[in-house]
Amino acid sequence: MVTVSLPDQSWLDAVGEVDGVTTLVWDPAEPPPEEDVEVFVAPYMAKPEQIEPVKDKPSVRLVQLLSAGVDAALPVVPEDVALANAHGVHDAATAELGVALVLASQRGFDEFATAQPKGAWLPRKFRPGLADKRVLILGYGSVGSAVARRLAPFEVEVTAVASRARAGDDLVEQVHGVDELTDLLPEQDIVISVLPGTAATKGVLGAEVLAALHDDALVVNIGRGPALDTDAALAEAGRLRFALDVTDPEPLPADHPLWTAPGVIISPHTGGVTDAFRPRMVALLREQFARLAAGKDPLHVHPRG
Amino acid sequence: MVTVSLPDQSWLDAVGEVDGVTTLVWDPAEPPPEEDVEVFVAPYMAKPEQIEPVKDKPSVRLVQLLSAGVDAALPVVPEDVALANAHGVHDAATAELGVALVLASQRGFDEFATAQPKGAWLPRKFRPGLADKRVLILGYGSVGSAVARRLAPFEVEVTAVASRARAGDDLVEQVHGVDELTDLLPEQDIVISVLPGTAATKGVLGAEVLAALHDDALVVNIGRGPALDTDAALAEAGRLRFALDVTDPEPLPADHPLWTAPGVIISPHTGGVTDAFRPRMVALLREQFARLAAGKDPLHVHPRG
Repeated sequence: MVTVSLPDQSWLDAVGEVDGVTTLVWDPAEPPPEEDVEVFVAPYMAKPEQIEPVKDKPSVRLVQLLSAGVDAALPVVPEDVALANAHGVHDAATAELGVALVLASQRGFDEFATAQPKGAWLPRKFRPGLADKRVLILGYGSVGSAVARRLAPFEVEVTAVASRARAGDDLVEQVHGVDELTDLLPEQDIVISVLPGTAATKGVLGAEVLAALHDDALVVNIGRGPALDTDAALAEAGRLRFALDVTDPEPLPADHPLWTAPGVIISPHTGGVTDAFRPRMVALLREQFARLAAGKDPLHVHPRG
Repeated sequence: MVTVSLPDQSWLDAVGEVDGVTTLVWDPAEPPPEEDVEVFVAPYMAKPEQIEPVKDKPSVRLVQLLSAGVDAALPVVPEDVALANAHGVHDAATAELGVALVLASQRGFDEFATAQPKGAWLPRKFRPGLADKRVLILGYGSVGSAVARRLAPFEVEVTAVASRARAGDDLVEQVHGVDELTDLLPEQDIVISVLPGTAATKGVLGAEVLAALHDDALVVNIGRGPALDTDAALAEAGRLRFALDVTDPEPLPADHPLWTAPGVIISPHTGGVTDAFRPRMVALLREQFARLAAGKDPLHVHPRG
């Protein structure tokens, strides 16, 4: 039997029974259980102090997060304990938010939202729409391909860019390397950044790159805020449009000029935050536990050291 | 040779040369041309008086509209002249607006739009999203299936309803008859009406039908306003959400309570109004003209009499 702790009763109930697995509740704000817990599932959006108690439980050999990001866990999980993230669990919600931001800006929802409380029925005006547009997905991993899959029936032409060029998949003929980005941009109508928050991605969408886009092109950010240089975005707002679920800084202070810059739509880092999260997370936990009970290696382990 | 008139030089240039077809400009505000025009293309959003001049041109045997609706043309086109609409030309733009309205409401864009000018970064809150939801498309024709095609990759379950039950297609297993609507509704999270504006569809979404929906379900209207009973919608706003591109009355007067009803998003009948229109309309015109030059029957002729 593998002994697994879950952060509260609702997760225990949701996961249910798994062959070869004993489940119990360990809320890290409470004293640790007596049992020899081998897999510790951290609370949703755990802070470091909510993961740190595993240090005093030498039976723990895997810490399973309920998020994709591992930043809070890395400093407090001992080197010899495996750390697994919730890879793929947020893909559906994040990708659909990407499409939502694209459609909201292309179809003028920001103008409609301003007009609505005034009771203003805006005159007929041809807006760009999404059909026939060229869309570049910057950061073509799990979320990026989920975006491409959702865009496919909208009669668009999708270009995928990742850190290095590689062969395509069922959605794109090829994946371009980021070194080709500036050459590809002048042809694009829409750029969707799904870049993670690393030193390498900081400011990738800076002044020079944005300058390569044609007038009225749209830049969407559903990755991490710092990939888009905020000063460069402010300088281009009006010539370009922006639809941002993530910003730098984040949260955006109330007096930040991005809130009221022309053609900018902001959602408050809500990419993965929908009803889709819980059933997908439960499915991943059940699969993970079943693997461990069968003596297999855990999925989605973050490389350490 | 078939002689075709187009309403202005820009349409003439856009259509270009078609084998066996002579094109010329006839702006119906001007005197008719001397040539024996056989096909008259009406201006975009033509009023009856912009179509009526064909009565004095007995050579005209087909009036081609640049819209799907034939209401303005029917009273002024002689019975022995064929009348063709722009069937399918608005499908891409209208279907993508349907998905845009769904996503905007499911993901809380109305709340974000209210918060943005205040510089308010809203706290994290799980919203319904689109993944895993059951979506009913009411009025499963050309636009309805275009909506279903765009929804397919969003991990939803789509149910199609039309005036009469029939076999399904590559997107839905079967098409239900509208007589099954009330039985189907309690299971649905989202209803998208694509119903046209006819006597039979008026008030189909009335108080009794809306009452069958569970709390927080979303009703989207991208068909014609009168299919949704406005008083019934106002009574249910708050319990249900609404995202409406068409309304009754339309345009909505500035002091109408729908503008400020809770959970209601309104776009100003902008379904077909994007850059996608012109290239699709040009393709249809070229196909239509080529058919006529080849002696075939015209496409999309409205049944008369």
